[in-house]
Amino acid sequence: MKATVLVRPKAGILDPQGEAVEGALGHLGFAVAEARVGKVIDLDVTTADPDEARVQVEQMCEQLLVNPLIESYDVEIHG
Amino acid sequence: MKATVLVRPKAGILDPQGEAVEGALGHLGFAVAEARVGKVIDLDVTTADPDEARVQVEQMCEQLLVNPLIESYDVEIHG
Repeated sequence: MKATVLVRPKAGILDPQGEAVEGALGHLGFAVAEARVGKVIDLDVTTADPDEARVQVEQMCEQLLVNPLIESYDVEIHG
Repeated sequence: MKATVLVRPKAGILDPQGEAVEGALGHLGFAVAEARVGKVIDLDVTTADPDEARVQVEQMCEQLLVNPLIESYDVEIHG
């Protein structure tokens, strides 16, 4: 199964990369109130069962991909 | 309008961060055939028109957020 994980800085957590993007877009003349930058991780997991894939990917998030103190995540399982 | 941009390394382009994630997940015992790492950028654009927001965000991608030689992108506009 293919899976996509979106990892984002939690609300209230400082995001220097997002601030840099926001500033650069402003300098280019774009009207942007806020920019936040996180990670998208595309995974090819070798199970064929979507429920099992979701369980595995959530374990990957908890053990490696996400720092729960400062980041939140969403998992999508594709066909 | 809120917008989300997903920026991914193009197929065939070397992705050292993805390879590191893939290796680390393997060491943890997860069966992962491939991992690719890109960016998710959440933007708050100050126009209220979804079509106009999409046009603006695509311009931001072309001028700053994306390197079209090595990256592809998708834009989602939220309500």
